Amino acid sequence: MTARILHGVAVAEAVRAEVKRDVEALKARGVTPGLAVVLVGENPASTVYVGRKREAALDAGIEARVVHLPADVPQAKLEQVIEELNADPGVHGMIVQLPLPRHIDARAVLWRIRPEKDVDCLHPMNVGRLTAGDLDGFHPATPAGVLELLLRCGYSPEGMRVTIVGRSNIVGRPLSILLSHNWRGGNATVTLAHTRTRELDAVTAEADILVAASGKPNLVTGDMVKAGAVVVDVGVNRVEDLSAPKGYRLVGDVAFEEVQEVAAAITPVPGGVGPMTVAMLLRNVVKAASGAVKLR
Amino acid sequence: MTARILHGVAVAEAVRAEVKRDVEALKARGVTPGLAVVLVGENPASTVYVGRKREAALDAGIEARVVHLPADVPQAKLEQVIEELNADPGVHGMIVQLPLPRHIDARAVLWRIRPEKDVDCLHPMNVGRLTAGDLDGFHPATPAGVLELLLRCGYSPEGMRVTIVGRSNIVGRPLSILLSHNWRGGNATVTLAHTRTRELDAVTAEADILVAASGKPNLVTGDMVKAGAVVVDVGVNRVEDLSAPKGYRLVGDVAFEEVQEVAAAITPVPGGVGPMTVAMLLRNVVKAASGAVKLR
Repeated sequence: MTARILHGVAVAEAVRAEVKRDVEALKARGVTPGLAVVLVGENPASTVYVGRKREAALDAGIEARVVHLPADVPQAKLEQVIEELNADPGVHGMIVQLPLPRHIDARAVLWRIRPEKDVDCLHPMNVGRLTAGDLDGFHPATPAGVLELLLRCGYSPEGMRVTIVGRSNIVGRPLSILLSHNWRGGNATVTLAHTRTRELDAVTAEADILVAASGKPNLVTGDMVKAGAVVVDVGVNRVEDLSAPKGYRLVGDVAFEEVQEVAAAITPVPGGVGPMTVAMLLRNVVKAASGAVKLR
Repeated sequence: MTARILHGVAVAEAVRAEVKRDVEALKARGVTPGLAVVLVGENPASTVYVGRKREAALDAGIEARVVHLPADVPQAKLEQVIEELNADPGVHGMIVQLPLPRHIDARAVLWRIRPEKDVDCLHPMNVGRLTAGDLDGFHPATPAGVLELLLRCGYSPEGMRVTIVGRSNIVGRPLSILLSHNWRGGNATVTLAHTRTRELDAVTAEADILVAASGKPNLVTGDMVKAGAVVVDVGVNRVEDLSAPKGYRLVGDVAFEEVQEVAAAITPVPGGVGPMTVAMLLRNVVKAASGAVKLR
């Protein structure tokens, strides 16, 4: 039996349709949600991601603005741009596309964003609220997208054993927190695995739901997955492929072909978690614009 | 073979001796570390804990002050006291003893504490930094105490499988974060179990290091522990005992007698983690007084 494919594109469309309705309701109240995306330099992947976020925002009726700065922008100038966006009442949410150039102190930049506008949920105030189980604030887009995808496909993590491979601040760590809190879609028993985990295959094989977010192509192979598990692949890796038009193709962290034979369900790359991330970012913008995120 | 007993009292004494030296060094530079403990009402356990913290601080040469407010103190008055301590240059660290009376919005109180003085590490800024792996800030006292006790007894969590039972904001959750980051004493593969965990005995039996922080007397029994595991008992539960002078005695979350026969090492209650908590609190006060915790 081959696994069911969990198509993030379709689920993300449903979320984006809801966001669109919420945006219309806000506009009827005289509020046009605004998103500012700060892009530094010309990293090709970043440029693609920023373009996608902008288009998705516009499509949902959100006013989206890209602030494009040169790769050699000084720290002070970048922080000044953030302060201007902090002060701009038309900007409800802002994100700074990562990674930033090496000469930039990324922490100082992220800490400069007003927490009420931090729709990427990277400011310590928002991370701290999330950790403390104060879930009325922003939820980081990719972890929230993973959870939403699971719930809408009928796989609630509640009471399940979840193994997450990868402890990044963007995906693995906040996802482990989101899934283990006592709330809708939470209450999972979560194990966070990483590069220093021994006998990784034993740890992954315990999982009812296995999330791969390690950034290593084909790290998760068929023998590492419990029969009937749900496998979520957050990886986006470029692998050289001279037969592909661009000379590379995108693969996840999961060896799709073989895991598909073992798992009950699996997300594809691309078309799995990626579209969910964008949809959940838009949802955070709506949250910000509706004034729901109070940080007194 | 019976397990080695990990005596927190002795280890905590070593830590407190180090703190004392650090305090002397600070005083030689003209800085006398100051701790303020805010106690609301007459909760007997809280009164005992506050007294212990004050004594330990004084013993280390820290100036310690208890601000005792009546149980019916209004929210505004309590917050005003916090603001006064925030503004007081002689107070480097402050803690508000929990639990607070029901009419008090505890979150609003904790958020009012200046993060640079939040030596209990409960403000979202400090929790967020910890979660993000920015470990130069404060570490919450009990989780830090568990880690320090393990390290000083020769049981590094590095590469180990750790199961933590209990997802509280004071112990379980921050400990899971501290142990899984990539740093000295971290790099463990951590599973966070809780009230909604199914087959808890299977989850605990995987652990090389098992931490019980559930607040349920005798939750962890011998059959739940892997032979040769290290067991840390964070529980402090009052159990009725009419033969005891006070009519109750303190027990942990671990059925000590039977687990002692299975584990390689085990912490007692009392005399295990408790004294470490106080020692690590003092360490945070020194950190605060030395100006090491920058929150720009």
